[in-house]
Order: sequence, then C-alpha cells, then structure tokens
Amino acid sequence: MEYPLDDILYVEMAFGRFYDIGAADSGGVTRLGYTKEEDEMHAVFAELGREMGMEIHSDPVGNTFVSNGGGRGDHYLIGSHLDSVVDGGRYDGVAGILAGLLTMRWARRDGMNLPVRTVAFRCEESSNFGVSTLGSSLVTKGGVGADVAAREGRDGRTLGEIFAERGYSLKPDRISGVREYLEVHIEQGRVLEEYRQRIGIVTTIAGPRRFNLYIQGRAEHSGATPMVMRSDALCAAAELILEIEKIGMAESVRHSVATVGVIENRPNALNVIPGEVKLQVDTRGIETASLDEMERRIKQAGKSICGRRGAGFIKEKTGETRPVAMDHKMQDKLARVAHSLNISHRRITSGAGHDAMQLAEICDAAMLFIPCRDGVSHNKKEFAHMESICDGARVIYKYLQEECA
Amino acid sequence: MEYPLDDILYVEMAFGRFYDIGAADSGGVTRLGYTKEEDEMHAVFAELGREMGMEIHSDPVGNTFVSNGGGRGDHYLIGSHLDSVVDGGRYDGVAGILAGLLTMRWARRDGMNLPVRTVAFRCEESSNFGVSTLGSSLVTKGGVGADVAAREGRDGRTLGEIFAERGYSLKPDRISGVREYLEVHIEQGRVLEEYRQRIGIVTTIAGPRRFNLYIQGRAEHSGATPMVMRSDALCAAAELILEIEKIGMAESVRHSVATVGVIENRPNALNVIPGEVKLQVDTRGIETASLDEMERRIKQAGKSICGRRGAGFIKEKTGETRPVAMDHKMQDKLARVAHSLNISHRRITSGAGHDAMQLAEICDAAMLFIPCRDGVSHNKKEFAHMESICDGARVIYKYLQEECA
Repeated sequence: MEYPLDDILYVEMAFGRFYDIGAADSGGVTRLGYTKEEDEMHAVFAELGREMGMEIHSDPVGNTFVSNGGGRGDHYLIGSHLDSVVDGGRYDGVAGILAGLLTMRWARRDGMNLPVRTVAFRCEESSNFGVSTLGSSLVTKGGVGADVAAREGRDGRTLGEIFAERGYSLKPDRISGVREYLEVHIEQGRVLEEYRQRIGIVTTIAGPRRFNLYIQGRAEHSGATPMVMRSDALCAAAELILEIEKIGMAESVRHSVATVGVIENRPNALNVIPGEVKLQVDTRGIETASLDEMERRIKQAGKSICGRRGAGFIKEKTGETRPVAMDHKMQDKLARVAHSLNISHRRITSGAGHDAMQLAEICDAAMLFIPCRDGVSHNKKEFAHMESICDGARVIYKYLQEECA
Repeated sequence: MEYPLDDILYVEMAFGRFYDIGAADSGGVTRLGYTKEEDEMHAVFAELGREMGMEIHSDPVGNTFVSNGGGRGDHYLIGSHLDSVVDGGRYDGVAGILAGLLTMRWARRDGMNLPVRTVAFRCEESSNFGVSTLGSSLVTKGGVGADVAAREGRDGRTLGEIFAERGYSLKPDRISGVREYLEVHIEQGRVLEEYRQRIGIVTTIAGPRRFNLYIQGRAEHSGATPMVMRSDALCAAAELILEIEKIGMAESVRHSVATVGVIENRPNALNVIPGEVKLQVDTRGIETASLDEMERRIKQAGKSICGRRGAGFIKEKTGETRPVAMDHKMQDKLARVAHSLNISHRRITSGAGHDAMQLAEICDAAMLFIPCRDGVSHNKKEFAHMESICDGARVIYKYLQEECA
C-alpha cells in the first residue's frame, strides 16, 4: 500500500458519510441538483470541512466552499460536484471533492499555509433541468439566460421558482480571487485502464455537437412489396450509422468520436417496411476543424445515401459547445509532478463535460482523471479505488507545494 | 365505364352499408375478430344476402354463408373476411365479400343455377388474438390447439371464454362439399399498379419465417470511449440490417423478401454507446429452399459481424409457416378467362397470408388480387376502385360459367 492507512481510512470514512444519501432501490444513488438530496450532500461536505477546523461559506447560488483561511485573497480552488444522475454512481463528482478535502487535510497536517479552497458546485449533471454545470456556470458567467430560469425540473417547478424559494440569485456576482482551478474526476472511460496508467492529465474537454437526422422512406407491407420496389428507411439509417462510425473512426486521429446513440423507427412493426427513422447523433472533438469536418461529412453522407434510396433526409443541429483547452503550463507541471512521485500518467482528452470547462473561462484550469473500473459511470456499478483518489490528491498537493514554495 | 352503372351502384351501396361499422376517430375502422363490430359486419352481409333472396347460414365458429340454393351438394365457395386490424382500411377482406355477392347477383340475374356460396370467415387478422385466419383454420382443420383457445384477446378474455359465451365450438366439424375455393383480395402491394395490370392471379402464398436477433455490445460513455475501444451494438445491428437487405435482394430472384421491421436499442440515450439491440426479422418466400437459404445466411452474417465486433449474437426463430401453392389448373383457367374478357393480368405471389391458405388444405383454391392505391393497406388510406372489385367478380363469374357449362 502506497498510502498510509490513516489516509485511506479518512477517504473511506468521508465517502461513507455520503454513501446513503439518495440511495435508490436499484443500488445506485439519485442526488439531483437543487433537491434536498443534494442539500444533504453539501451539508455533509460542510461538516467534514468543519471537523478539519476549516471555514465554510456558500455563494448566492448554493455552491459550498471549504476554506483553510489561507485563501482569503487569491487562492487555488479545488473542486467538483456532489449531485448525480438518476440512479447514478457514488464516485462521479464525489471523488474530486474527497481529493480536495484530503489535500487540505495534508496541508493542515504538514502545517503548510497554502491558500486553497475546495468547492462543491451545484447541479453539474443535466439530469434535473436539462442543463449541465449550472452552479459553476452561474458564478463564472454571472448569471444564466431567462430560458434556463424557465426550465422545469423533474418535480415540475422551474429553476426560477426553486431559486426564489431558496433565496438564491440567478444573477450572482462572478466568482473572484481564483488563481487556478484544479479538478479530480473519474475518467468515465477505459483509456487509463487499458493503458494501465494511474492519472490522466486532461488536455482538452471535448465540445459535443449534436444532431437529429430524419429519414423518410415508404412504409409498406413487408410481405407484399418486392425488394426492388422499396424505400426502407431503416436500411438507409443503417448505411448512415455505419458511415457515421467511419467518419468518427477517420477523425479519431484528431481525438474525435461520433456516436449514434438513439434510434426511433416507425411504425416499428414486424410486417411493415420501416417508413421513418430518426437518429440522434453525438459528435465530440477537441478541434473545431474536426467537428466541422464530421458535421460536413455526416450531412453529405445522409444526403447521398437517402438520395440513392429515394428517401428524404433532414439534418437538424440540436446543440453545440466549443472544446475547452486546459492550461498548457499547468498540464506540463502536473505531468512533471506525477513523474517525480512515480505515479504513472498520460495526457488524455475528456469526452464528457465538467465544471472545469466553466472555470477555464475565468482562470487557468486543469483536470486530473483517475481510472474507474471498466470505464463504467452514471451507473450503480461505478467504482474507483480509494488509492486512486489519493493519487489525484497527492499530485495536486505536491503541485500546490511547488507553486507556493 | 366498362361496367353498367347498376353494378357499380350495387357495389357502392353494399360497401356503404359496411362503411360506418367500427369507424375510428382516425378515419380508419376497427373491426376485430369475434367482437360486436365483426358481428355487425356479418349481420349486414347476411342482410345483403337475404335482400337478393339468398339463404343464410352460419357454422359453429361463426362464419357466415350466403347460398343461392344451387349449392346444396358440392359447391364453389367464394370467400374472404370482414374483420380488420386496429385502425385499418375498408377494403381488406370486404372487397372479396363484395365480389362474391356481385357474382351471385349476376348469376341470379342471368338465371344461372350455379352451385355457389359466398362465405365471410371470422377473424382473419391476427390483431385480436395474435393468430390469423382463425375462422377458416377452425373449419378446415376441425379445431385449434389448447394454446390458441387460451390466447387472450384485446379485452382480456380468452378465445375459449368468448367461444363458450357465444355457444361456438373450438372443435367444429370440418367444412365439406367445397369443390373449389375462390378469393378476391386487394393486393396490399404495388406490383399491379407498377405493371398497370387489373388482376393478379396468385401463384403461391408466401410462408413467413420470423426471427428475433439479439446483439450484445458494450454500453459506454459516448464522449469518453475512443472509437477503436468500442463494441457498439447499433453499429453491429446496422451491418446486419444491410446484410439482411442484401440477402433478400439476392433471393428476390426466387420471389423472396427479407425485412427488418422492428429495432429496439438500449439504453437508447444520446450520451451512451448502444449496448444491446434486438431486431425482429420477417422473411417470406414461396420456395422452402429459399427460406432455408435466407435463414442460414442471416445466422451466418450475424455470427460473423458480431464476432468481428466483439459482440454477442443470438438468433431465435419465432415463427414459421410453409408457403402454400394455389391450384395450377385454376390459375391457368383464370388467366385464360381474364384474357378472353380483355382484363389485363399477371401472375403474382402473395406476401401476405389469406384464408385461401387454409382452404387449400381441403380443396383446390385460387386467389385473384386487385390493385389498391399506392399499395397501402392496414391503414385508413387504403383504397380500391369499385371497378376493380367488378373485375374480380367478372373473372370469377365467367370462370364459374365455364366450369358449370
């Protein structure tokens, strides 16, 4: 064991304090943003901070900060989130919060007066309001649009109503004094596991660009319509799905991915040739040029395949977020630190969005990934080793020591 | 106009008497087998028979016969059905009944003492009990298995309960005295329309052979999993769908078809790589060798595609019906008759099942298809011309005249 038992036990104890909150019958947890389950998570986080003798405060949108007092002026901010998806896992977000607490614990133990805070941002997952990284967006942008305030959560109330009831502000002051932002998060993929690396240093958080593709063929009797007379929307969709896979494969040299995650087939009946198919496509990349290229090729493929098959084709863009680069100097320094600690690591891109995307708008930001078993996330089977959380904290701690030396 | 106004008006009047029965808000009709809507259809059919001075009787499973008295001994039987699918059209089945009535009307008008009956079989569609051609099966086979009696209809009652309540028998005597069976039916496809033919002389009713195909890939985060690490069940399914299309295309020289009508994708979420796909496949053919070949190639394709993609594959056969040939001599004679009447015609296979399949078990049987607009059937848009119904009746009438001369 590389870490003292005391560290492992601390992380396990803290993890255990969160464990039952929002526990679902399935075995997973449901801790939606801006609900009482998330409130409970933040209350436990504050308690854990107080137990270490830290100061606690919260901002006008409910984000909770644990501060060691060294961070009254400019400070380093370590952060992540404490909400989950419906029936989610117990490590997504929580791992980063535990890494922050452990870092502050070590600093206190070692008598290091590092200017550092750990923050739990609110509502990082899109599961409640269909908008992700809400808590971090609000305080980095200084507010969100009226359309977001009007969004209904799963209980039918709008975000605006919930904020009014809680006395929160949809137009808060921007967060200030943050020198750098650091976030530890489970990878939610299998790259580190496959390459047997303990830490991933995130280079860029990919921007998702999403599309609905509509294919209109001709629904006819499956027995009475000869093959050559058909315009089968599902066959056209199948060609397009494979073409999108090829496009993603070709662009994987630029670390892009392309996925058809959702298919709706109509009428979806055994004795009827499919007449209409809707595909939902998720493309992600760290280079805008690659995202542009994928979009262009998907559109071209859809038109060409459907044209050849006598089917209609419509492409609709449903969302676009730009890729966000993590700070290059921080990446290099974190890599050197990991190397000096003999913690294996590699550069990695993040396919998923994170609070670090928002923080990168106002300061230099970096992310460290730790492996999660089989890459499984957003699922009760999500699992990460306590040692991996320690790895993340260890790299950050040494990094801060060097920065503040 | 090729037919006297009197004939057209008669068919329109009779069609109109059925029109409102089971009318659905959508514009279509719902006349499920062994429900009061089907009863009403049979009552109107009996009335129409009585108005022509015919004798009416029904058998122990509720099939209704209109007889001209000439058919006390061996007789020619013209038939079809009066039930519909949910939200179905007004011509499927009804067209054949109208053709039978018109034939008998002409025979009476011309003083021809042809031994002929028209029958409306019960519950031809599988929409109520999941079993098709029920009324004709019962009286040609002399019963159905206990599994069929136990099937629940859409109102939750079993076929056995419904039969007991109605005083029907699940083990009726077999129908007897049928010299030959003739059925007119809308094509439910576009072949006649494409070839601009007025009559299709059915050679064989294709046997459907149906499969469920299960593909097991790996559900992972669509952003966090590089293309080369994936086992995307939907991409595997897409390859298989296209291969099944190719197999159907190759076997179309033997008049076979292969269709993937149903796809279920799991978890069907935009940010998750598809982990599981189920396909439902409908193959139909008039040659057993071709059906065998398609089954073999589909299995082989599934194993090979999924093997290559690291996905699991299971093929499950869910149903198999053998192709049924219509009587060759009747086909030839009907073709000669159509030719002599200057009614354009071509040989055609039936992809859909019909009561004639069951009757072919006990006597020589033939079917005539008439065009339906755009091949649309099982839909409120179903449409056939009254003249086409007259065409069917005309060919049958002349055929019977020649047979009885």
